Amino acid sequence: MEKQTPGGRPYKVIGTRPIRHDGEDKVTGRAQSGADISFRDQLYGKVLRSPHPHARIVSIDASKALAMPGVEAVITGAELPQPHDRMFLSGEGGVENFRYVNDRVLASGKALFEGHPIAAVAAKDIWTAEEAVKAIEVTYEVLPAVTDVLKAMQPDAPLLHEEITTETLGEKKKESTNVCRHTQHKRGDVDQGFSAADVVIEREFTTSTVHQGYIEPHNATALYRSDGQITIWTSTQAPFWVRRDVAELLELPLSTIKVVPLEIGGGFGGKIAVYLEPLAVLLSKKTGKPVKLVMNRQEVFLATGPASSTATRIKIGVKKDGTITAAAAHLVYEAGAFPSNWAVMGSMCVLAPYKMETLLIDAFDVLTNTPKVMAYRAPSSPQAIFGVESVLDEIALELGMDPLELRMKNAVEEGDRRADGPKFPRIGLKETIQAAMDSEHYKSPAPSGPNQSRAVAVGFWFNAGLQSSATVGINMDGTASVVTGSVDIGGSRASMAMMAAEALGLKAEEVRPSVADTDAIGHTDVTGGSRTTFATGMAVYEACQDVLGQLKKRVATLWELPEEEIEFDGSAFQHADNGKDPMTVKELGAKLTATGGPVMGHSSVAPTGVGASFGVHIADVEVDPETGKVTVLRYTVVQDVGQAIHPSYVEGQMQGGAVQGIGWALNEEYVRNDEGKMMNPSFLDYRVPTMLDVPSIETILVEVPNPGHPYGVRGVGETPIVPPLGTLHNAIARAVGVRMRSLPMSPPKLSAALQAKGLEAIAAPTP
Amino acid sequence: MEKQTPGGRPYKVIGTRPIRHDGEDKVTGRAQSGADISFRDQLYGKVLRSPHPHARIVSIDASKALAMPGVEAVITGAELPQPHDRMFLSGEGGVENFRYVNDRVLASGKALFEGHPIAAVAAKDIWTAEEAVKAIEVTYEVLPAVTDVLKAMQPDAPLLHEEITTETLGEKKKESTNVCRHTQHKRGDVDQGFSAADVVIEREFTTSTVHQGYIEPHNATALYRSDGQITIWTSTQAPFWVRRDVAELLELPLSTIKVVPLEIGGGFGGKIAVYLEPLAVLLSKKTGKPVKLVMNRQEVFLATGPASSTATRIKIGVKKDGTITAAAAHLVYEAGAFPSNWAVMGSMCVLAPYKMETLLIDAFDVLTNTPKVMAYRAPSSPQAIFGVESVLDEIALELGMDPLELRMKNAVEEGDRRADGPKFPRIGLKETIQAAMDSEHYKSPAPSGPNQSRAVAVGFWFNAGLQSSATVGINMDGTASVVTGSVDIGGSRASMAMMAAEALGLKAEEVRPSVADTDAIGHTDVTGGSRTTFATGMAVYEACQDVLGQLKKRVATLWELPEEEIEFDGSAFQHADNGKDPMTVKELGAKLTATGGPVMGHSSVAPTGVGASFGVHIADVEVDPETGKVTVLRYTVVQDVGQAIHPSYVEGQMQGGAVQGIGWALNEEYVRNDEGKMMNPSFLDYRVPTMLDVPSIETILVEVPNPGHPYGVRGVGETPIVPPLGTLHNAIARAVGVRMRSLPMSPPKLSAALQAKGLEAIAAPTP
Repeated sequence: MEKQTPGGRPYKVIGTRPIRHDGEDKVTGRAQSGADISFRDQLYGKVLRSPHPHARIVSIDASKALAMPGVEAVITGAELPQPHDRMFLSGEGGVENFRYVNDRVLASGKALFEGHPIAAVAAKDIWTAEEAVKAIEVTYEVLPAVTDVLKAMQPDAPLLHEEITTETLGEKKKESTNVCRHTQHKRGDVDQGFSAADVVIEREFTTSTVHQGYIEPHNATALYRSDGQITIWTSTQAPFWVRRDVAELLELPLSTIKVVPLEIGGGFGGKIAVYLEPLAVLLSKKTGKPVKLVMNRQEVFLATGPASSTATRIKIGVKKDGTITAAAAHLVYEAGAFPSNWAVMGSMCVLAPYKMETLLIDAFDVLTNTPKVMAYRAPSSPQAIFGVESVLDEIALELGMDPLELRMKNAVEEGDRRADGPKFPRIGLKETIQAAMDSEHYKSPAPSGPNQSRAVAVGFWFNAGLQSSATVGINMDGTASVVTGSVDIGGSRASMAMMAAEALGLKAEEVRPSVADTDAIGHTDVTGGSRTTFATGMAVYEACQDVLGQLKKRVATLWELPEEEIEFDGSAFQHADNGKDPMTVKELGAKLTATGGPVMGHSSVAPTGVGASFGVHIADVEVDPETGKVTVLRYTVVQDVGQAIHPSYVEGQMQGGAVQGIGWALNEEYVRNDEGKMMNPSFLDYRVPTMLDVPSIETILVEVPNPGHPYGVRGVGETPIVPPLGTLHNAIARAVGVRMRSLPMSPPKLSAALQAKGLEAIAAPTP
Repeated sequence: MEKQTPGGRPYKVIGTRPIRHDGEDKVTGRAQSGADISFRDQLYGKVLRSPHPHARIVSIDASKALAMPGVEAVITGAELPQPHDRMFLSGEGGVENFRYVNDRVLASGKALFEGHPIAAVAAKDIWTAEEAVKAIEVTYEVLPAVTDVLKAMQPDAPLLHEEITTETLGEKKKESTNVCRHTQHKRGDVDQGFSAADVVIEREFTTSTVHQGYIEPHNATALYRSDGQITIWTSTQAPFWVRRDVAELLELPLSTIKVVPLEIGGGFGGKIAVYLEPLAVLLSKKTGKPVKLVMNRQEVFLATGPASSTATRIKIGVKKDGTITAAAAHLVYEAGAFPSNWAVMGSMCVLAPYKMETLLIDAFDVLTNTPKVMAYRAPSSPQAIFGVESVLDEIALELGMDPLELRMKNAVEEGDRRADGPKFPRIGLKETIQAAMDSEHYKSPAPSGPNQSRAVAVGFWFNAGLQSSATVGINMDGTASVVTGSVDIGGSRASMAMMAAEALGLKAEEVRPSVADTDAIGHTDVTGGSRTTFATGMAVYEACQDVLGQLKKRVATLWELPEEEIEFDGSAFQHADNGKDPMTVKELGAKLTATGGPVMGHSSVAPTGVGASFGVHIADVEVDPETGKVTVLRYTVVQDVGQAIHPSYVEGQMQGGAVQGIGWALNEEYVRNDEGKMMNPSFLDYRVPTMLDVPSIETILVEVPNPGHPYGVRGVGETPIVPPLGTLHNAIARAVGVRMRSLPMSPPKLSAALQAKGLEAIAAPTP
């Protein structure tokens, strides 16, 4: 594994751990998040939401609200332009149709989920706005609702969108259905594959709807000026997508809209789609004043996109030596109230880590009376891979094989194909499994007390490329500034500054990174998909090359030598044999004015060499047989990170992802009553792990550089949320002998399962 | 005069009058100026200022102030690093020595002017800060002060800086002096030149100190983070210079400082130097909190840099036919309390409009116990040219020649040299004089009532180039964004957007301009010197060419044709003979993603082809012989503007400049008592013209394109302040027969002069 710059030199900045450039602002709370910004004459908005998961809106009467002192405007879905077909790249599940965004933002004919926006109010203060919302009179015709994906697939299920008819593998039928998409991948004859196996195991799994659980609620402040110029201040992962979505929804040119991204208090994929932004813009247009909306926690749970609940069936066949001969996956994903593509993505992830000659994957996106699901860290992968890792664990036990040996035997490597077709470039799954095998954790004795055990699981995420832009300027003292359009959600200011410093021969502290608004930098896609350090980093690298090219001309002028004879060796400009002292970028800074003025470099990229990332997690657990509470005794995340730019942030991503996965596995779920209403829309009842619930997560960074990036970068943020579901499931199974195939493995569910199994079995587990 | 794009096509956008992009924010007061910004935990700063024009600081005791509840810090000059020699480009008079900036910002040994900062306080609110300033005990040893430039040149004058010794034309002498610079320009034998003349007139003139009179006072808010990262929010004409000055003063790397330029409520050259910014940074460093300082009007008058008072002597000799044979100018400029170069600039302007075989110019910068003078619109030119235009008016009367004929006869044109050497490129003085002669105003009968008359004068300004950077991005809908580092003081957002629109074949409204902070764009010098539309405009033009080059590659890909065969004709990409429909930038926008991602263009320029600007003003006046009040009956500004990008803003610049010049001529002055203290530091007593004091200023735009700019741009903002001094002086002389050679020609002074002349003379003027 070569750890060096493209020029073959050892790294000077990359791989070090400087203090993050935005650290002080973050730890002191000075960083300005969405809700922190306010303007003179600002109004406060509030959204009226449907109390019913499914209901026809018969009438809306806002007259009483409008008559209240201090209420300045009320809007309903009727004020949005007609929906139109237009495909777009989104955080709502890849490529989506814009047709369904209008209705999601503000309902027109029907309320399709509890919390669906029905109307919005702008008033002089938040209290007046809240009272005004209550004064709006809506007449609903309540309809039967369906919130369970399998029930929603039944022929007699209540239908969400009459116009959606079954589309099975490209063939359209006439019957209306809640199945908005069916995707299939096939390789070889899967039946023959299973026949060739010595052991075949097939199991069914379910996972619950879970929320990203970011601390900062959604927010938007907008000003619609009388000349049609619009500014939106919001905490978002994708300011350019907010601009596009608002332009599309309100049928405006992009050039009239500026989106100013504020500091973001967590996103994890959930802060990509627009919710409040178009409402703030419409309310500001009506009132001529800036309008601010901030959700409360209940609104965040009810009305923003969580990750799909799923029902999956996984079947794997292996030879006695562990070689997989065939696998079949049947994946059903909750779409929520509008069409989605998450099952499509699940189908691409589910079998990705393993080689096999034959496979069959069927994936279904299913409409339910729940909020439209959205991206959540490695979206769709955790639910899909969970079942595979459980079945493989059973197979390893059946074969008496070390579970990592079994994975190593079948692990994909360069040249192998993913189920959906693409060939893997250089990847590091085998190196990662090996590193897990070699780890102190895995080599240490497994915990052997009562109801204790150890287990492992594998995870995978594609990582994304998309488009990014960067500008790099050289200051008069030779320090540099770096501007990108990528919102910083996980330390990207630091990583961008470090990559620029590496390229220019500067120190990390000598580069000042910043995030620009949509007017101030070229198009840049979402901060998400673990694409930022890769793609925006590449734009920064290329912009630095642009700068170096310009600086070389300056050195040539100063030295009166041909440009071609001058080299930049990573530290300074050099000439082989003219005896000139090398000249650094820092030294050149002061000479810019005299040699032709300022130097700025720019790059816009849409890179293709994306490097997938694989991880292996190891967990030691202990189950309390009486309460069903699971204590994670030790937890290690091993992951191929390509090249860690700032190792502390890579470790932080791995730790954070693992903890979110642990929450998903053990506790988090949307609890719904018979009417389909959520019973736990608060952090008191929707239980995310706290510091007290998890041990310090250990991390092992495996660095198999991605050949598609000058510094070998792979995305690192998503993969670590994938393995915890299988890892903890396997560890619990090995500890207490019950396979909890329905997540979460929460204390009530686990204790009930243990009761069912009988206490004697628990005392002497036979996994 | 070819009025067309570099491609030879007629302009589509340039020369039109779209609504300015920032208009709504400006007229509604939403634009955020310096004082509008506030932060949590913010402290308020206040400066303790010297009550004495000249005093030794014996001791400063801040203990009582520091003991006051709510007072968090006090700083004095001792906390600034030692001053050091370093030349820099500034708004303080061209190239200056940094050595004297420390002391100007915070006095060390001596107070050198009334209002000189002695100490600064940070407290929880402005009232506490004001009380704390009063509680600081300073012991002064009061020294004799000198505020008049001619007195300051006397051998027995109080000395400001003992270490400054006479430097006359490169020769250093040992005696200390207040003359900090003597500049001389010579051409031919001036005595011979005067001998060859038929008429020689020599006169002496004085002008008073005048202030730029911007409405918004100086302000600065700074946050010094514990990690050493600094942000400064301020309304300034030169954010990059603020960054440099603070870095230089506090000995910090540029990369630790970000300057965020806020909207500016007037600058006119006076908002270039740092005053409060370093104090805000130091106070924030001491307290760890954001600190805000805003001057009151008295502080603005006493402690920020006005324009020099001057004492000049002008001698001009002409042949009977009006040909100038020789001119001599002796110019003495107030420098204020620190060395300055304004007389140097005056020496470059004074004779610039006219050809002559022989000349002699001596210019002296003289230290006085007054605030350091700073740039004010066409800095140094009005005071210098005032005397020349008066003498020429006398000559015209003496020769019985039309005053415009006299100027036309001697007007410089392409190839003529300025007194200080440089050759003029293509300029439009003759065209401008001709346009004035042809104007309806000049052709109409001059006012012929009692004490009425008409007169003219000429003005000149170099205009500047310096360095600018710009970034242009193409949005997905084909609209564009333009980012520059030039603060918008006169409509540059609109002009940048229009030049980009012209280059890209878009509408002005389809381009979104913005002004970036110092982290977000390449080095860009001051918005001043009438360089912005020229130099930053050129950066925008070049960045658009970069964009067009990249777009051409995309079109080549889409059309599968060689790039070289594709042309952009100003509206769309074309291919001569392949039958493809032309493709506009707007159409290409949607195709960027599919053809390689976003497109951004960039340019950093340091252009040399600066085009000077000349103006001719015509005034009709009436003098009230009893009160000395001058009524401007009609006023026309004729000016070579190169190419007006947005004619309304060009007209606005011409009108605004003329009105400021009228104020300078008729009313504005620093009134000082015997101790050298200013007696009128408020807008009540320092009288700037209001809407009621001037007629609607008429404008005639002469467009002689500057060949050094792709769109023919010359700066337009400075020249119009130059002619009013001479124009009104000449008109008053022609109306009432007295030459008021000491400005301002205020009612008390003019009525006294009329008294002296005798009322009968006034009734029948013989000018």
